[in-house]
Amino acid sequence: MSEQEYRSAFEAYREIVEVELKQALHGDSRVDEAMRYSTLGGGKRVRGVLTLAFCRAFGGDVGKAAPVAAAIEMVQAFSLIHDDLPCMDDDDMRRGKPACHKRFDEATALLAGDALLANAFNTAAAAMFLPKSIKPNHAVSVVSALSGAVMEMIRGQQLDMDYESSKKLSEDDILGMYNRKTCALISAACVCGAICAGASEKNLHKARSYGVALGLAFQMTDDLLDVDSEKHDKKTYATVFGKAKTKEKAWEYADSAVKIAGSIPDSAFLKEMAIILNKREV
Amino acid sequence: MSEQEYRSAFEAYREIVEVELKQALHGDSRVDEAMRYSTLGGGKRVRGVLTLAFCRAFGGDVGKAAPVAAAIEMVQAFSLIHDDLPCMDDDDMRRGKPACHKRFDEATALLAGDALLANAFNTAAAAMFLPKSIKPNHAVSVVSALSGAVMEMIRGQQLDMDYESSKKLSEDDILGMYNRKTCALISAACVCGAICAGASEKNLHKARSYGVALGLAFQMTDDLLDVDSEKHDKKTYATVFGKAKTKEKAWEYADSAVKIAGSIPDSAFLKEMAIILNKREV
Repeated sequence: MSEQEYRSAFEAYREIVEVELKQALHGDSRVDEAMRYSTLGGGKRVRGVLTLAFCRAFGGDVGKAAPVAAAIEMVQAFSLIHDDLPCMDDDDMRRGKPACHKRFDEATALLAGDALLANAFNTAAAAMFLPKSIKPNHAVSVVSALSGAVMEMIRGQQLDMDYESSKKLSEDDILGMYNRKTCALISAACVCGAICAGASEKNLHKARSYGVALGLAFQMTDDLLDVDSEKHDKKTYATVFGKAKTKEKAWEYADSAVKIAGSIPDSAFLKEMAIILNKREV
Repeated sequence: MSEQEYRSAFEAYREIVEVELKQALHGDSRVDEAMRYSTLGGGKRVRGVLTLAFCRAFGGDVGKAAPVAAAIEMVQAFSLIHDDLPCMDDDDMRRGKPACHKRFDEATALLAGDALLANAFNTAAAAMFLPKSIKPNHAVSVVSALSGAVMEMIRGQQLDMDYESSKKLSEDDILGMYNRKTCALISAACVCGAICAGASEKNLHKARSYGVALGLAFQMTDDLLDVDSEKHDKKTYATVFGKAKTKEKAWEYADSAVKIAGSIPDSAFLKEMAIILNKREV
């Protein structure tokens, strides 16, 4: 798959996620407005796109996975809103515009994050009741994988804060934190797409492994992009082990994702994605 | 059913919820500790008990509904932790002990609330995979009802805050706010119990109506108990319409719940519950 083909496939997937998110985020209260503000019109949608791409890779109907992809992106939006709050990372800006609690207020941002998390499960469950529906046991598996990932993300966020005051961190400490903070949701996105396609346990395992490898590469590339602007005393792979080793490691994990994708039927897009994401400069 | 019989049935249900919650709240991080602190060893468990009682009333196996009852109580615990945060109601005490953010810190309280919400859906979904399992489509319906209720609660919480600065509120304003803030989760608790028993649409409707009536009575009784200690400028039925009318209305709704229970098969417990809860003095 050429880079050009990859980019147009990505855009097509992204558009499906965007339409689905818009549908799921109606309502006219201030909280609803805040949910839309922080979810729509921004974000690369890497996670939602992965859900759709994995559904297709295992021969599923992408339309059936669309609500699940939107659910994954709502979880991502929830986590960013809460991470930006003053009691957490205290970030005023997000995706080039004021963070939710700056544009609205802290109470609204807190509630908007909570409501996005609830809406994610509502949307995933609703995928069972739509005309193009997934099977009930698949919907339950999606809820199970997604809620499990959220709990891991939260433990990862906790570790991230705990590590700020840590003097000495091992490679395993950092990788363990990344596995929870970043890889849990990315690999859940892959697994949930595979679930929508009715993939076997063996194939769900491949989806999970790809997601973990891609997640580590993704986070390390983020580290490299952020290394000079990192605030607080955040410990990242790059701040602890240096840029050169981080770049090397990121490519190791990206290559590993490509290799895992090699054992997945229709995986040209997934292979290209691991490489392109690792070349990111924004 | 005598008051004595009711109280021992309530205790038996409560114990089932308690055991289930303990099982669902393991883990040894600070967030896990905070989740246990705010969920275990306190709380009347009215909502979880309702789930079990409705499952039994419609002829279901209470054991199958136990994880769902625990999920409902985790949602309740999540909402209390976030409501107590400084940016919300800023309450230092909860159930006679320091609020989660006072005992731990704001970041941990935020994360513990988030993790309880995720764990609620994880636990409800897991009910499908247990030896005594509910059907997949019932598990999805539970997730759907519960997540819908959370979104309503959040909109109710938003109204509650908006109304603090409102000069003139109608009876419909207050009842609409209570319907979201309080009745949504109570009626979801009833409906989810009925779902676990495989109740018909008609019976799910009865469960929902009972829950709404009980919820309104419950909130008004709370208002009466809190009327002298109410902080901020919280608007309640009691502060707007006075104690006498509130007491009268609370009994109207409790009677209405008793009447609805009259059309439910095994409902002696549910009738007694509506009356006893309305006589609360704590």
